Amino acid sequence: MTAFYFGGDYNPEQWSPEVWKEDVALMQRAGVNLVTVGVFAWSSLEPEPGRYEFGWLDQVLDLLHDGGIQVDLATPTASPPPWFSLRHPDALPVKADGTRLTHGSRDTYCACAPAYRKAAAGIARVLAERYSEHPALAMWHVHNEYGTTCYCDHAAAAFRLWLQERYGDLDRLNAAWTTAFWSQGYSHWDQIQPPRATQYLVNPTQALDFKRFWSDELLSAFEEQKAILRSLSPETPITTNFVFGGWVPVNHARWAPEVDLVAIDHYPGSAGLGAEEQTAFGADLARGWAGGRSWLLMEQAAGSLNVGRRLHTKEPGRMARHSLSHLARGSRGALFFQWRASRGGAEMFHSAMVPHAGAESRRFAEVAGFGASLPRLAELEGSAVEAEVAILWDAEAWWAMQSTHLPSSELDYLAAVQAAHRQFWAAGIGVDVVAPDADLSAYRLVVVPSLYLVSDQAAASIARYVERGGRLLVTYFSGIVNEDAQVRLGGYPGAFSEVLGISVEEFHPVEEVRLRSGGRGRVWSEQVDLAGAEAVDRYSGGVLDGSPAITRNEYGEGVAWYVSTQLEDEAYESLVEQVVQDAGIERPELPAGVELVRRRAGESTWTILINHSEVVVELPVEGYDLLSGTQVLSPLRLIAGGQAVVRA
Amino acid sequence: MTAFYFGGDYNPEQWSPEVWKEDVALMQRAGVNLVTVGVFAWSSLEPEPGRYEFGWLDQVLDLLHDGGIQVDLATPTASPPPWFSLRHPDALPVKADGTRLTHGSRDTYCACAPAYRKAAAGIARVLAERYSEHPALAMWHVHNEYGTTCYCDHAAAAFRLWLQERYGDLDRLNAAWTTAFWSQGYSHWDQIQPPRATQYLVNPTQALDFKRFWSDELLSAFEEQKAILRSLSPETPITTNFVFGGWVPVNHARWAPEVDLVAIDHYPGSAGLGAEEQTAFGADLARGWAGGRSWLLMEQAAGSLNVGRRLHTKEPGRMARHSLSHLARGSRGALFFQWRASRGGAEMFHSAMVPHAGAESRRFAEVAGFGASLPRLAELEGSAVEAEVAILWDAEAWWAMQSTHLPSSELDYLAAVQAAHRQFWAAGIGVDVVAPDADLSAYRLVVVPSLYLVSDQAAASIARYVERGGRLLVTYFSGIVNEDAQVRLGGYPGAFSEVLGISVEEFHPVEEVRLRSGGRGRVWSEQVDLAGAEAVDRYSGGVLDGSPAITRNEYGEGVAWYVSTQLEDEAYESLVEQVVQDAGIERPELPAGVELVRRRAGESTWTILINHSEVVVELPVEGYDLLSGTQVLSPLRLIAGGQAVVRA
Amino acid sequence: MTAFYFGGDYNPEQWSPEVWKEDVALMQRAGVNLVTVGVFAWSSLEPEPGRYEFGWLDQVLDLLHDGGIQVDLATPTASPPPWFSLRHPDALPVKADGTRLTHGSRDTYCACAPAYRKAAAGIARVLAERYSEHPALAMWHVHNEYGTTCYCDHAAAAFRLWLQERYGDLDRLNAAWTTAFWSQGYSHWDQIQPPRATQYLVNPTQALDFKRFWSDELLSAFEEQKAILRSLSPETPITTNFVFGGWVPVNHARWAPEVDLVAIDHYPGSAGLGAEEQTAFGADLARGWAGGRSWLLMEQAAGSLNVGRRLHTKEPGRMARHSLSHLARGSRGALFFQWRASRGGAEMFHSAMVPHAGAESRRFAEVAGFGASLPRLAELEGSAVEAEVAILWDAEAWWAMQSTHLPSSELDYLAAVQAAHRQFWAAGIGVDVVAPDADLSAYRLVVVPSLYLVSDQAAASIARYVERGGRLLVTYFSGIVNEDAQVRLGGYPGAFSEVLGISVEEFHPVEEVRLRSGGRGRVWSEQVDLAGAEAVDRYSGGVLDGSPAITRNEYGEGVAWYVSTQLEDEAYESLVEQVVQDAGIERPELPAGVELVRRRAGESTWTILINHSEVVVELPVEGYDLLSGTQVLSPLRLIAGGQAVVRA
Repeated sequence: MTAFYFGGDYNPEQWSPEVWKEDVALMQRAGVNLVTVGVFAWSSLEPEPGRYEFGWLDQVLDLLHDGGIQVDLATPTASPPPWFSLRHPDALPVKADGTRLTHGSRDTYCACAPAYRKAAAGIARVLAERYSEHPALAMWHVHNEYGTTCYCDHAAAAFRLWLQERYGDLDRLNAAWTTAFWSQGYSHWDQIQPPRATQYLVNPTQALDFKRFWSDELLSAFEEQKAILRSLSPETPITTNFVFGGWVPVNHARWAPEVDLVAIDHYPGSAGLGAEEQTAFGADLARGWAGGRSWLLMEQAAGSLNVGRRLHTKEPGRMARHSLSHLARGSRGALFFQWRASRGGAEMFHSAMVPHAGAESRRFAEVAGFGASLPRLAELEGSAVEAEVAILWDAEAWWAMQSTHLPSSELDYLAAVQAAHRQFWAAGIGVDVVAPDADLSAYRLVVVPSLYLVSDQAAASIARYVERGGRLLVTYFSGIVNEDAQVRLGGYPGAFSEVLGISVEEFHPVEEVRLRSGGRGRVWSEQVDLAGAEAVDRYSGGVLDGSPAITRNEYGEGVAWYVSTQLEDEAYESLVEQVVQDAGIERPELPAGVELVRRRAGESTWTILINHSEVVVELPVEGYDLLSGTQVLSPLRLIAGGQAVVRA
Repeated sequence: MTAFYFGGDYNPEQWSPEVWKEDVALMQRAGVNLVTVGVFAWSSLEPEPGRYEFGWLDQVLDLLHDGGIQVDLATPTASPPPWFSLRHPDALPVKADGTRLTHGSRDTYCACAPAYRKAAAGIARVLAERYSEHPALAMWHVHNEYGTTCYCDHAAAAFRLWLQERYGDLDRLNAAWTTAFWSQGYSHWDQIQPPRATQYLVNPTQALDFKRFWSDELLSAFEEQKAILRSLSPETPITTNFVFGGWVPVNHARWAPEVDLVAIDHYPGSAGLGAEEQTAFGADLARGWAGGRSWLLMEQAAGSLNVGRRLHTKEPGRMARHSLSHLARGSRGALFFQWRASRGGAEMFHSAMVPHAGAESRRFAEVAGFGASLPRLAELEGSAVEAEVAILWDAEAWWAMQSTHLPSSELDYLAAVQAAHRQFWAAGIGVDVVAPDADLSAYRLVVVPSLYLVSDQAAASIARYVERGGRLLVTYFSGIVNEDAQVRLGGYPGAFSEVLGISVEEFHPVEEVRLRSGGRGRVWSEQVDLAGAEAVDRYSGGVLDGSPAITRNEYGEGVAWYVSTQLEDEAYESLVEQVVQDAGIERPELPAGVELVRRRAGESTWTILINHSEVVVELPVEGYDLLSGTQVLSPLRLIAGGQAVVRA
Repeated sequence: MTAFYFGGDYNPEQWSPEVWKEDVALMQRAGVNLVTVGVFAWSSLEPEPGRYEFGWLDQVLDLLHDGGIQVDLATPTASPPPWFSLRHPDALPVKADGTRLTHGSRDTYCACAPAYRKAAAGIARVLAERYSEHPALAMWHVHNEYGTTCYCDHAAAAFRLWLQERYGDLDRLNAAWTTAFWSQGYSHWDQIQPPRATQYLVNPTQALDFKRFWSDELLSAFEEQKAILRSLSPETPITTNFVFGGWVPVNHARWAPEVDLVAIDHYPGSAGLGAEEQTAFGADLARGWAGGRSWLLMEQAAGSLNVGRRLHTKEPGRMARHSLSHLARGSRGALFFQWRASRGGAEMFHSAMVPHAGAESRRFAEVAGFGASLPRLAELEGSAVEAEVAILWDAEAWWAMQSTHLPSSELDYLAAVQAAHRQFWAAGIGVDVVAPDADLSAYRLVVVPSLYLVSDQAAASIARYVERGGRLLVTYFSGIVNEDAQVRLGGYPGAFSEVLGISVEEFHPVEEVRLRSGGRGRVWSEQVDLAGAEAVDRYSGGVLDGSPAITRNEYGEGVAWYVSTQLEDEAYESLVEQVVQDAGIERPELPAGVELVRRRAGESTWTILINHSEVVVELPVEGYDLLSGTQVLSPLRLIAGGQAVVRA
């Protein structure tokens, strides 16, 4: 059992050697044991083509090693230096409208450009050759936040090769893309282009395949570097930091098996309780990618949340609560971007472990305080996070729902999945977030929120799960299209009609609808016809007045629920309560705003409790609290912001 | 007397031959007698340059003919295949900012590109050669929704030729465009460009002429195909489907004489009663283009309305009500886009006559039910729609008012004309929508909403109409500029000051104003000075307090009213009531939400009634109701959604 | 003592010679004594390269001279003719995304393009050669509203030269720009580009330097023309009209010493009292640029205000009140764009001295009336505007705060400075708006609103001012970065921490905060730690509950106040009242909406009073009112809209 990782991105190239020494001393004060070095250092390491400057990095790694701090060494390939862009203008990224971007920010490359791939492999090799034996080296950090799309001719050529691989012949592609519509039939491969700027709506399957292609293309760029590092540094784990967002053409579930340790960056976008919900969701998602094994929070902000037009400063204690939530849900540590706040550059107001005010500050004190608490939690490592419920998540379904041709532009896959997750988070019921084709047999309940696109195989697996006694909750606009983004004919929700015992002829996108139970739905409704299912709730008023809104169907040994609208939280909570009871899942008594996670290893169990509310709460828990190092008796009192990690 | 057309766009290339057979059987079940085939079939017909595949189309036309269904055969020139774009990149459209669009949607061509024109003529000729004798052929459908603008060099060259034709010499162009302002004087024709992206405001007359040019250029593209089809298929009527929208550079009133049958696509953009108002307006506009003769609703959606961020599903019966409104106002049929909902492609969620759910659905049942009712209405064909009121509409005035340099960006010509039309629609008073230079002598009342641009000739014709006893209602911001979009000096509303007996020195754009009568205006007000007219209503409060808002002037034998603000509906209704009474027009007693159209042929008259409201209404009508096939006595009861076509 | 200037832009090239004669007669009727001619006349003067047409201008200047009207003759270089753009496409401006703009508007040039500079110098020389001896010539008006940015390769090359000049060597540039962040290190000068479209956030110092560069580049373009005019016309004053706006890369404070007379264009963007506040602020700013000497209002609109989506028509008398406010605050006249409203072109609805309605109009009558009043005010010329308060304004701080990387996108430097100015305007306390490095010793109070960027030198000068007894009021988010836009480490507000006796560790961007005094702040708050200062007000509620919001610190012989949030007007007014009292500044009793300016020359003093309110007010003033030509006794009664210029 090793200690949890604690630290962050360290960019010494921005500072003088005097500061480096202070840094190591402060890191020790804060309990830092791992820093990521070199993410943006390409122009410092190779200021001119072929001329390397390693002296500063040698010195920094030695200093860190001497200070007892391990290094997650990055290949700096996410930010090629200006000289590279000037020499290889064809490697600059191009937008859908043909605009070629320039250097002067970060990520100004096209991963399909041969010159870029060659240069990236080159700098990775040079770094590995020099540092693979360095005693500070603990991990390789390939690149940074893979996620850049490009529409250039290199990308077009690579896309065509990928399509040939996927479809084999053009007839299959034409059929999959429905190119008969709008006269888009291709008679040669070289007629196919990325979904560049065009007159009107883009072909949705073309757009979806372009994202799939990019995910694979970026993965191959990662694999190229991984192979080099592995060959020179066979014992060192290799990872990259996953970034999550609607613009990211990366299917992380598919990538995860290729990294030695799943690592994520996480920056919540809400000032209220949404930040805590997003934190839990992000952590559960990462654990899902990691197949239930531990993973690593590679980046978070020490002091702020990105909320619309402003940075919201994290209240005292909030950084520690978020960090504990990540740890509780399986992270092997809590790392930050970045160690020391930059004086200049585009992210100078990004919060840091050492703020502009310096180490004699509340922020640094909180960082150091949290660092000091980590060793006390070491025994959690290796234990499993408990979950009886699975929520399905699929990147391809997300991409398909980003299309502009849907019946409502308000349909939002991520929001639908987060809304489902939020109900269980609030109820203190453990949830795994897994892929649609995952083995579901271990779960008492599976939730399928708005899974617009689903493969035949996954749909069959879900049906089998119910047939054999599983409980299922499917929400609106699920099962509509197959993997080619083509509608499943004969009544919605195609893939799930049978298991749900219903059929839907037409959608009714709306502003708001009401249910007879008094609940409200938004955005969406459907005219549901019963085909075996019973109506649990019905629409009230409007054109759907009296028709089923929520249904329940017994299927094989199991039960399948359907909700045909986007329920508001109150109604959603009540539905989840029924479904959970129906599934025989025990629901803890949990005050509002309190987060609960259960871990287990063999006979041992731990209960992690985080009071995000603004009041004192009492909880029926007892045992040994690792954080306070004391035995606690029930009821356990947690002050506002209080936390406990109780071994039973 | 032939039956009304019933059917829609049929795209068999998306489906297998098995489906074609089911299609014909279902069409027969639904009473379909005309389908539009081949609109987007270019890449299916000519998958590679010069290699044609007609087998499938032969088969489909034969099947349709055998099933008794006629064909409106399209030239597929609105969507050139990918191979064409790849071969002729100079024929791809270019945006004002220089972005060259790519294929992958539809309409990715520049109609000025010689290669495109040649290819379009080629495919039209090949189709005509093969199918002009086919017994299923009933009509030629050239292209689809002409409306694509391009700013490329081909367009620039064609624009210059058009300008030379219009202006003869550069001095006249410089004067018309007021190029002395901002140093835009041209000394050679080749200095002139389309209104491409520039530093700041564009020259408004240049922008207007560019739309005029495009209308003529697209018309010449249409004429080219028409000549080919006519030469090979001299007996078959030729049309194209007009699309209406602010982005469409087509002056349909000018095009209409060139088509054998005016045909329109109509997709209302409102979920409420606005959809019915827009339907009536669109139909009256089409009849105006057709010079009062019958026309054809070529496309509508079977099941949905495009409302902002979402598709609104048409309530039961609404499709039939809209269709009847079109028929009542002169359409020779009711056609849909499209027959069978696509499985894939960008419009897979566009509603269709056969929905994704299949033929055993409410939607198809309604379609078939409406189809079955059409033969009963056959006697309406050939009768005239009655109208004592004309509302003026002019595409050039619309384009001129789309300029960004007006005193208020809230001025909206289309909204102003629709607001006027709405008053008469609600009152059940028949309206023709006609061009400013139309013969007005037959009307009791002419309404001129916000006719910003008007020619001397049209202004004189309108004045003559009043002089000879006509009633006129002019609304704010009319008569401001001449055909060169130059202000008529000496006091607004220049072109109409004399006939209205007023003069306006300055505009007062506003959020809202009040009138003494209690009414409200929005967006606009004017300081009106009386010069012979009397004040009918005055502004109340604000800087214009007490000055005339609505005026009435006796001019020659007639009367001319003016309203200097954009009245809200209640005040507008009350003004129209006064004006209508003043004009001696009879106003029926009509419950809210009921649509009334009167038709006449010789001695016969028909009253068409559509109850769009949600309550039962009673109406003082009697005679023979073609729809129910029964004699009806006054009061006629119409349930919510009910319809009647009563022969007196 | 000469008379005040009265007139405007005169564009005779838009009109026929008959109109010119009417123009001169109407100018005489209106008291016009100066007109700006030729601003947009390049294509009229040189319709083809090298072929000049001066006849019309000769005739116009002679007519004006004969009519007793002086001419401010413009070089027409802001609008090169179409032939120029066609010949030199490389001189057309390019946007950050690479879009090359075309001619067809105005300002379609890049000032860095050699061909443009040569052509501009050429036309200036030709004009000077021909007209330097013309008796009508009173002033040279170089160009128009310098403010156009370009990102083309000419601009890139010039930017690099400017950077070499500024930084000397690349190491200094790399350090100043913090290029170590995101791997932006430059190893050759030619790697540097303008801040063109890039993948993500732009380097903030690069963006700032690009604006500084453009200011200097445009200045050198101005200087080139000035040198030519001076050499041929040594006695004639030379100016250009400054335009003020967030998009304008001109540091007017730095330019002002280079013009013989500071001249501004002023177009308020508010319909309410904001228009009057903006007028006073613009005028005080212009006087600041002019170093307290007189300046000239070169353009304003006779009849309208640009308010969001609409033009708001100026109410009767409002034009005169704005004009008097400018004169009171140091303008040597009141000029308009333009004399006669255009019939066509992009600004045909820009209001003018002679409106479309003609000279027999209320608008022209007001113009002529105001012109007639001006000679009565002649004795004001040469007197000084009194001010005991200075507000600091800095273009570079503005540009730095336009960056997209700040903690809140709601931070608005201009709004912060105008909010400060508004308090003193409302209180009738005279204010100078001066640069941060100005000599402050003469002021009783200096206000520093949100001075995000400040140089060491200016910060030291401000501290010295306080040390020697000055009163200082600094507002939130001041003193954060140095001239390289790099954070001053060790606690905010770095540059001012010591003089203010406080330290701030972290910002708290917010929607709204409350103070214990009951006041409210918006957008911003800070956790202030006292380091010598006392808390004058504290936050109430929220995470900063109880911590200091407003502080007061005695420093040396002076006092320094700090407010850490963007106070709403009521609370701001109350703070200013305390600070003003603390500074011993006398505050007049002034009814709301009344503007007061004091002028002094030797023993003589004048009080200018403008009643912008809608009620009659009484004021304790007596003396001789130049406007009415009568002796007035206290209390002076001013009707709504009334004005008085009272010599004590």
